[in-house]
This record gives sequence, structure tokens and C-alpha cells, in this order.
Amino acid sequence: MTHILVATLALLLLLTSISAQDKTIAERLGYPRDAKLLIVHADDLGMAHSVNAATIKALESGLVNSGSIMVPCSWLSEIAAYARANPQADLGLHLTLTSEWTSFRWGPVSSRDKVLSLLDKDGYFRLTETEAAAQADPKQVELEITAQIERARALGIQPTHLDSHMGTLYQNKALFELFLRVARSQKLPVRVAKAWFSRADFLPSVLTQDDVYIDRVLDINPTVAPQDWARFYSDALKKLEPGVTEIVIHLAYDDAEMRAATADHPDWGAAWRQRDFEFFTSDTFRKLLQENQIKLITWREIAKLIK
Amino acid sequence: MTHILVATLALLLLLTSISAQDKTIAERLGYPRDAKLLIVHADDLGMAHSVNAATIKALESGLVNSGSIMVPCSWLSEIAAYARANPQADLGLHLTLTSEWTSFRWGPVSSRDKVLSLLDKDGYFRLTETEAAAQADPKQVELEITAQIERARALGIQPTHLDSHMGTLYQNKALFELFLRVARSQKLPVRVAKAWFSRADFLPSVLTQDDVYIDRVLDINPTVAPQDWARFYSDALKKLEPGVTEIVIHLAYDDAEMRAATADHPDWGAAWRQRDFEFFTSDTFRKLLQENQIKLITWREIAKLIK
Repeated sequence: MTHILVATLALLLLLTSISAQDKTIAERLGYPRDAKLLIVHADDLGMAHSVNAATIKALESGLVNSGSIMVPCSWLSEIAAYARANPQADLGLHLTLTSEWTSFRWGPVSSRDKVLSLLDKDGYFRLTETEAAAQADPKQVELEITAQIERARALGIQPTHLDSHMGTLYQNKALFELFLRVARSQKLPVRVAKAWFSRADFLPSVLTQDDVYIDRVLDINPTVAPQDWARFYSDALKKLEPGVTEIVIHLAYDDAEMRAATADHPDWGAAWRQRDFEFFTSDTFRKLLQENQIKLITWREIAKLIK
Repeated sequence: MTHILVATLALLLLLTSISAQDKTIAERLGYPRDAKLLIVHADDLGMAHSVNAATIKALESGLVNSGSIMVPCSWLSEIAAYARANPQADLGLHLTLTSEWTSFRWGPVSSRDKVLSLLDKDGYFRLTETEAAAQADPKQVELEITAQIERARALGIQPTHLDSHMGTLYQNKALFELFLRVARSQKLPVRVAKAWFSRADFLPSVLTQDDVYIDRVLDINPTVAPQDWARFYSDALKKLEPGVTEIVIHLAYDDAEMRAATADHPDWGAAWRQRDFEFFTSDTFRKLLQENQIKLITWREIAKLIK
């Protein structure tokens, strides 16, 4: 009898434990398992005035509800002033180790001589994420991203999350491990999606039960023709699966500054960003959210799950 | 008889020597003593795309014929590409130790930990030239301006002259001495005018016979109302004295980027720069040059006087 009781208790305990582990991120956030939860996230804040202006306007529409900031860029001060004036805004840091345009460039926040592995021959961050990841000394990466977080905080930005410009910090296990270590020490969630586990198999081995990650990240890509832009996003929203999705977008105006910045680089260029701006501040997008019962959530909510 | 000969020769030698010393800069350049020679010089290249675009257009008009580049700023690469493609352009370096706008900022080219005296609490150059000069350790200034020259040369810019953004390097004798020492080692002329000797009495004590300096520098100032802009410049050109004058102007378009950059700072702001652009690319300016027999010369010509 005692044996049966002990066995039953053990089974119950096991089932409870499995069920806790199996709780989806949606459920942990207090939503039904089948809720469609969306973060509409604008990258690259601080990069240029055009990016700041378009993203601030989009944030004010309420339809774009999150964004992340590039600390090494010249226009950081403008977006830091916005962050101080709008402490409720869901702003994270877009940790930056690349400087991808050729007409305007940026470099490290930390002392150059301490992060030489991150620099190209001209003293700027490297042009591509693959080159950056291949050359980077992980200790120097840790120094630099910590310096970026410290500068942001010194300017009054209270980041709600961290991600990585051009995905440099996801390029290999060593970089992702240190990224996660820095994020844990800051008690901040990191852009990681369960859907990535199949294409970056080091991810599940580095993540623990205590780390919080979302279900999937969506973004548009250069194979979509400009005239198919709205259709791509509409289809994605109509087919949105339950759980937490982040849609990563790039906002700016198709103006002189942005055209010059991205002149030799139409992908993620000025016209691309104007198209993103137009779709994500449109009534079409607002209606798609309503018609498909999609609820917007923020990284701030996700951050509360971190112990 | 021999005595008379020796005395006559000595007198002749003395007169020749006095006459060499007394040669004006105009004469040393091969022009008549009463020639009216003008450098039309646009400052702040590299600071923003708007500055680069307007200045390149003005240089192409031929009416603006010189400019100087801010190496620490993000848009350096765009103007460096122009300099490489136009090696005849009269481009110098606008050595930069201040970051005067509040919505976008920049910092040193050298390692931060080696130039801490040049930085504000946020890690950028200081906002004003007086603050920068008061706090700057001259050794760190020398390190930083040398690094700026080296970066410019590494990017293929062959500077024809040096000057100092916001005049920081003219704020005191120690800074000016080191500026001149760096310029001499680079065999480059520096923006210095004889007309400044009365207001900065350390200048003549630091300059030697081997240094080359011009007669005067003209610029407009915030006391001139926008509607009096053209009249101010027209009057200055009509009254232009013989010798070498540099007119220092600030070009950009009154566009979104420039308005945001200079939002809290109308002096030298976006509208100011658009007015400068309009006047110095106008037929009015072209006619004033012709009617007043003003000849445009460059720093490249002046640099040839340096031994």
C-alpha cells in the first residue's frame, strides 16, 4: 500500500515536472497555449537620423511596438533622448560588431587597442558578419558588447532585451555562449527562437531551462520583389502560428541620407526601409492583426520571466 | 675704396634680405603685391551626408575651391571616396577635438584610454572648444591629431592643408605650438592669418620665417540676419583688401538630416548652411569675383612655399 502511494506520488511529481517543462512561452506569459503573440520589432535605431525618425513615428502609431539600438553609431544620442523621454518604450540593444555600408562607417565603443580583432584595416568594424565572427577574439567581443551596454545605460537607456546586428553573435557557439553569459548577467532576454534550433544545432546545448526564448522570428528577404512586399507580410500574418513570434523589420525614410548610406547595397536599403515603414504603419496591417486575433506583446513582458 | 665696396655690398645684402622678409604672401606666390587672392573654403566635410553632398556640388561649380575634412565622423568614407576620385581637389583636414551637436556625436580616432582628457562623461569629444582646450592634455591632443592625419592618408586622402574644427587648436599657446609642430612635420600649411596676431598675441612668437601664413580669414557670424546674408558677403567681396584672404563657409542642405543634427543650435545650423550654399554657388558670387578682380587660389599653391 505504502509502495503504491509512493509510486503514485512519484508519478504525479514526474508529470507535474514534465508539464512545467512543457509550458509554452505563451503559457508562461499568462496567455492561452494557442494565442498568437507578436512582437513587431524595428532594428538599427541610432544608425541614422532617417532610421530614428521613421521608427519613432512607427512606435507612436502603436503598430510597431519594439526596437533595438546600435550604440556605436553617431545618432545614438537622438534615440537615447527618446528613450529617456519614453521610459515605457520597449527598447533593447542591437549589439553591433559590423559596419556594413561603405559610405559611412562606425567603430568600437571600447578602446581600439583593446579590440583590434574586431577592426578592419581602416579602424572600423568589419563589413560582414562572417568576417567579423571569423576574426573576432571572444574576449574582445565580450569587452566591446559590455562597453556598449554600459554606454547605453550611462545615457539613460534601460534596455529590455538584447539582439545582435547582422546576427554576428549567432555565427558560432563561442560567440553565442559569451552573448548569453553577458545577457544572463544583465538579466535580459536575448533574441533566440526555438525555430532556429534545427539550423544552429549549438543553440539547444547552450541554452538552459532558465533561459527564455521565443518560438520563431520572421523577416522579409531580398528574394521578395518590391511589389510583393505587402502580400508577403499579409500572408505571413494570416498564417501566423500560435506562440510568440518576433517580426523583425527595418524602418527608415527613402530620403537623401538613407539613399547615400545604402547606395551600393539595395538589400536593406532606403527603399526597402520605406516599404517596411509604409506596411507596418498602415491600416492594412492594423486590420490584419485584428482579423487574425494577433496580440502584440513586448520584450519587457518576456524579461519578467527571467529569474 | 675696398672699405666703400664692402660697405656697399653689405648694404645691398641687407636690403635684399629685408626685401625677402618683406615679400608678401601674394608676391611669394608669384602674384602682384596688390592682387586680391581668395580661397573659398568649406569646413566640416565628412560630418554628415548633407554636408558632403552640398560641398561636392559647390566644388563642382568651381566657385568653392577648397574644403577640409573631419576624420572622426561617420561620413568620412564618402568624402574619402571623392578625394580619391578627385586627387586635384584642394582638400585639407579639419582636425577635430569637439563634438558640438547634441543629437549626434563622435569621438576619437585613437584609442579612448589614451586620450581620456579629450572625452566627456559619455565618451565623446566635448561640446565646446573652450572646454576642450581647458581639459586637453597636449600630449593626448598630439596623439589624436596625428591619428586623424594617419587615418586620412590611409584612406587615400592627400591633405593640402590643416585647420582646426571650432578653432580648438588656437585656444592657447601650448595647443597652437603642437599643432604647428605636427603641421611642420607633415610639411602642410595651417590656417593662420596675420590679421589674428592682434587678438592672439602668442601667434607671432610661435611662428617663424619658415612658416607660411595668409593675410586674413573672413566668415559670417550669428549677428547677421538671414535676409542680410547676401549683402554681408557682397560687401565683404567689394571691400576685399589685397593679399591672401580665406573665406570660411559652411555648406549643407536644409534637409531632414541636417535639421535634426542642428536642431537645438540655429547658429551654423541647417538653414545657415543652405544660405551659404546658395550664395557661394550663385551667379551673383561669380560676378562679384569678376567685377572686383578677385582671383581664386588654393592651399595647394600655398603649400608649395613650404620648404
